Amino acid sequence: MRTAKQKLSPVSWKEVTVNGGFWQEIQKINSTVTIPLQYIRMEERGGIEALKLNWKPGDSNKPHHFWDSDIGKWIEAAAYSLAKHSDPELEKKIDDLVDLIEAGQQEDGYFNTFYNLVDPGKRWTNLYYMHELYCAGHLAEGAVAYYLATGKKKLLDIICRFMDHIDSRFGPQTGKVHGYCGHPEIELALVKMYQVTGEERYLRLSKFFIDERGQQPYYFELESLSRGVNVEVKADRPRHLKHYLCCQGPFAQYQSHLPVREQDAPVGHAVRAMYLYAGMADVAAETGDHTLLDACEVLWKRLTEKQLYITGGIGQSSDGERFTFDYDLPNEITYNETCASIGLVFWAHRLLQFNGDGKYADVMERALYNGIMSGVNLEGDRFFYANYLSVYPDRFKYGSTLITERMAPTRQGWFEVACCPPNLARLVASIGQYMYSTSTDGIYVHLYNDNESKLDLIDNQVILTQKTEYPWDGHIGITVNPENDAEFMIALRRPGWCQNAEIKVNNAVIDVEVRKGYWIVNRLWKQGDVIEIILDMPVQRIETHPSVRTNTAKVALQRGPIVYCFEEIDNAKDLNDVSLVSDADISARYEEDLLGGVVTLETKGRRRDTSTWDGQLYQPVKSEKMDITIKAVPYFAWANRGPGEMVVWVKQEE
Amino acid sequence: MRTAKQKLSPVSWKEVTVNGGFWQEIQKINSTVTIPLQYIRMEERGGIEALKLNWKPGDSNKPHHFWDSDIGKWIEAAAYSLAKHSDPELEKKIDDLVDLIEAGQQEDGYFNTFYNLVDPGKRWTNLYYMHELYCAGHLAEGAVAYYLATGKKKLLDIICRFMDHIDSRFGPQTGKVHGYCGHPEIELALVKMYQVTGEERYLRLSKFFIDERGQQPYYFELESLSRGVNVEVKADRPRHLKHYLCCQGPFAQYQSHLPVREQDAPVGHAVRAMYLYAGMADVAAETGDHTLLDACEVLWKRLTEKQLYITGGIGQSSDGERFTFDYDLPNEITYNETCASIGLVFWAHRLLQFNGDGKYADVMERALYNGIMSGVNLEGDRFFYANYLSVYPDRFKYGSTLITERMAPTRQGWFEVACCPPNLARLVASIGQYMYSTSTDGIYVHLYNDNESKLDLIDNQVILTQKTEYPWDGHIGITVNPENDAEFMIALRRPGWCQNAEIKVNNAVIDVEVRKGYWIVNRLWKQGDVIEIILDMPVQRIETHPSVRTNTAKVALQRGPIVYCFEEIDNAKDLNDVSLVSDADISARYEEDLLGGVVTLETKGRRRDTSTWDGQLYQPVKSEKMDITIKAVPYFAWANRGPGEMVVWVKQEE
Repeated sequence: MRTAKQKLSPVSWKEVTVNGGFWQEIQKINSTVTIPLQYIRMEERGGIEALKLNWKPGDSNKPHHFWDSDIGKWIEAAAYSLAKHSDPELEKKIDDLVDLIEAGQQEDGYFNTFYNLVDPGKRWTNLYYMHELYCAGHLAEGAVAYYLATGKKKLLDIICRFMDHIDSRFGPQTGKVHGYCGHPEIELALVKMYQVTGEERYLRLSKFFIDERGQQPYYFELESLSRGVNVEVKADRPRHLKHYLCCQGPFAQYQSHLPVREQDAPVGHAVRAMYLYAGMADVAAETGDHTLLDACEVLWKRLTEKQLYITGGIGQSSDGERFTFDYDLPNEITYNETCASIGLVFWAHRLLQFNGDGKYADVMERALYNGIMSGVNLEGDRFFYANYLSVYPDRFKYGSTLITERMAPTRQGWFEVACCPPNLARLVASIGQYMYSTSTDGIYVHLYNDNESKLDLIDNQVILTQKTEYPWDGHIGITVNPENDAEFMIALRRPGWCQNAEIKVNNAVIDVEVRKGYWIVNRLWKQGDVIEIILDMPVQRIETHPSVRTNTAKVALQRGPIVYCFEEIDNAKDLNDVSLVSDADISARYEEDLLGGVVTLETKGRRRDTSTWDGQLYQPVKSEKMDITIKAVPYFAWANRGPGEMVVWVKQEE
Repeated sequence: MRTAKQKLSPVSWKEVTVNGGFWQEIQKINSTVTIPLQYIRMEERGGIEALKLNWKPGDSNKPHHFWDSDIGKWIEAAAYSLAKHSDPELEKKIDDLVDLIEAGQQEDGYFNTFYNLVDPGKRWTNLYYMHELYCAGHLAEGAVAYYLATGKKKLLDIICRFMDHIDSRFGPQTGKVHGYCGHPEIELALVKMYQVTGEERYLRLSKFFIDERGQQPYYFELESLSRGVNVEVKADRPRHLKHYLCCQGPFAQYQSHLPVREQDAPVGHAVRAMYLYAGMADVAAETGDHTLLDACEVLWKRLTEKQLYITGGIGQSSDGERFTFDYDLPNEITYNETCASIGLVFWAHRLLQFNGDGKYADVMERALYNGIMSGVNLEGDRFFYANYLSVYPDRFKYGSTLITERMAPTRQGWFEVACCPPNLARLVASIGQYMYSTSTDGIYVHLYNDNESKLDLIDNQVILTQKTEYPWDGHIGITVNPENDAEFMIALRRPGWCQNAEIKVNNAVIDVEVRKGYWIVNRLWKQGDVIEIILDMPVQRIETHPSVRTNTAKVALQRGPIVYCFEEIDNAKDLNDVSLVSDADISARYEEDLLGGVVTLETKGRRRDTSTWDGQLYQPVKSEKMDITIKAVPYFAWANRGPGEMVVWVKQEE
């Protein structure tokens, strides 16, 4: 019987020290600006005060049922940061939060600020909507990270008691509740708890939540009927939320329309989907259940071949924050929640460990450098929830859309539901963990960035040191320092975008086999061996599958992993009328003083001259085009120079 | 001082008998299918029963506050039809309705089925939303039409009493209410009442409603505060309707943000805007108030140069059924309510009478042959509310939009708010009135279609007979039969789309001056003189102003006044990947058996081959294109062969 064991082992964020280059800059801002700011925002909005149990019915600023998850994610981000940069003040803040959580924990282990304060008698009555297990999961991830970062076990112990309480209530056994959370998260968190504590009941509980999901009769239906409503048919909320009635079936909005192994397309809320699929991959890996991995692979193929933006964005619809249909990738009216792309990285990273297939790393890289990092400004203090691929600001002033902060075309200081900023912070702070894996054969190098890392092989330890200007330059140097000289494999990722490259070891070009997107270098490695990877990094004009109706006759520019866009500030208004000339050279230039230092692109383009139109709105085709120079900047860095038009996809003359 | 007198006089629908060609076919279906069906629908939905005052609080099927307007529009349409084709059964139906209206009229002249039955104490307390004056206006239009069609005065008398009641309540005098309706309509209806009764107080009241609109303090604010709510700031309706808070200012959704003479852009609800502007033009014409005409001209220019679809559609946003911003003309996510284009025809027709400028007739023709007739199927029994210029059906199955009947991409049998079908019916039944005007100089011919018409000049009467296959063919024959041979002008419209043409009189080509889009033929006309107009009608590739971001690099095909579209049934899926070849011939062919007989177009196109993509969603540009034959059909006739993709704008290779 097939089992789904991971052939690769992820390398912990603890072992990878980012010490230069692209990600170091971002981590520095994350640690010095973003993480401190997020604590302040939680204070301002009342999340910390609520944790102190100071809120009483009738008070303003009612605790939000998501707030515990913000706390959990913030602790997680802060823990990753702390592990690399000692910061007693930050550590004190976390310890104080842990004390508050301890004080708020109920006798039986239960913890939830909203239910503790706002609706004490109602706990566990609305798994569909109220996020109790989701919040528990995020607190668990925070607890695991803080324990691993500092060795302090108090929060982990609190969460163990909480998880034990959950385990006593939910499970397949008679007498236990056969429920699961409207927002997946607990599943992957329980696997982390299992990994760090060795308690198998956490793994079993995670597997239960996954196995139970989508079984009939639907738990959500039974639960809601017991509250006197039917959430699907007569939704207990305003009409404008009825779109939660997802067309793919009852409860599809929450991926609960079918048992997970029967799901063959990404549906419903995109962040929920990613967290669920990541949990499925975790349980597959830990239990060897190949049916879960098979389901992941079907879902992966459908998602990445039919509903993935070039930026790594996913989840096209702002209504319901969800997937729509195959090849539907609108640029202007879309959603692409930052959290969804982050969830995609979590899932991709887990799938990558099974067989070391570079296609997963390609998507991970696509999301990291583009649709995720677009989620925060260069200063680290403003955030996008929605990541559009085309913006015309008037649409948000005079358009038809009911605009909320989460749909704004300029980055916002915070959000009513503030999931994205702390999610970004924890991802950036732990970016090192995505760079390497090990296996019985040796080492996998997934991402390229300056770092020094300690990689444990079966009977050896290797210090790898990377030095590179990637993603701006394709030259990567890796120094290999094994504790003992030994023969092992180093698998170097050949990015999906790369069409020509050279590999050298100790200055000699070597001929290497490519296997699933990795150059496999097997040799006797000695202290101080130097690998050089020289990736050709020409500007590529990318086309989209013909069924994607919004990108036909258009191209996007990509160089290395970086997807580019055109902004009004560089190219004037009416960007949609700009076309590239198909045979024109495109120059790439590093501009140190622009947008924190980026490679920009310039090429010849053409556009019509509006001055000749004289009040006509339509005319028989006759207008001449003017030659212009157009400039592109990395998509992730857009909207850092004031509001304006932006497009990723631009017409190309044939 | 300038005054705004109309130099032209519209010719009544009574004098124009459509006796063949395009519009006869449509009128036949309108009379035999659409008008009878609409009566049945009103019966089914309860509108007739409500008029019988049979509804009691607690009963189901609560009367809708719009229902009286449906009755009024239906009577109007039926009256026009009746005048041309005697139909005792239909006349009996109208007379019965009139009796019911009489029975429901209050002592003081007030009439409104909703307030009579549902909320008797609350009349005139919510002009903002409850459409009492709007319903009154439609009943008045019905009354005028029925009186003119049959000479029967009962309904007109009823409405006179109602209008007198309104006049006693609203007006500039102290003690009267300085209010106006949330939905303009009463203004133009009062002018019709004035024209048919000669009672100047109706004209004065219309002028009052127009002058008062948008003055501060805002009537709607005062009114709503007196009901204990603030409609703008704390809307008294669900959150999803808060988009009625239009960004152009308080009450801009209802064109009440500014005095009408200060409004310089079409804003808010498109149908309301058109009815208001038509009323403004009426009052300008009847009072000579040039400031109202000036305002109309500013609004006209802004609308037609910046927010008019090629089909004559207007009002881009389904949220609020309203205008958005200049050059925002999305094809797929739009609205273009059928009623809004009908209102545009009303307004254009009025402005045309001032100076006989063909630009108004061009827009009238554009809307009539395209964005209005798309509102009904060929059988006359299903209707579009929204008229998209691009449809991908999956968007409505899996997309983000909360779809209601009014937004459906296939024509519907009826609607909750059923304004469009009877509006279409009354327009089609009265189409003759848009064909001619007279002036002190002679006759204006605005539209080309078979008809025989009696046109009264100052001291002569002329029978004109048109014979043509227009809009499929550009050859038009007009026989002129003056009662007395005389010298006068016949102004023949030179359509805006026409670039070459020939005019003959009695077989001899004549050289004629063009003035404001009309060929001016001055001569001594004798019985039996024959005018021939030969309009070159090549297929034109139309481009849009460069600021219209959704149409760049695309063309639409137009032949004569007919705008074409491409349907999936003729061209397979993925229409957006089809491109025209810029120098390929486009053949035009009349197909008698297709879509009731239409000219279709065929040309060479190209598209990418999806079979070579092999699971890729993105790739560096390399795909080859295939040559294909593509076929276009008239836009108005789309969606008559089952659901499928449709596009008007198609890429063109350069």
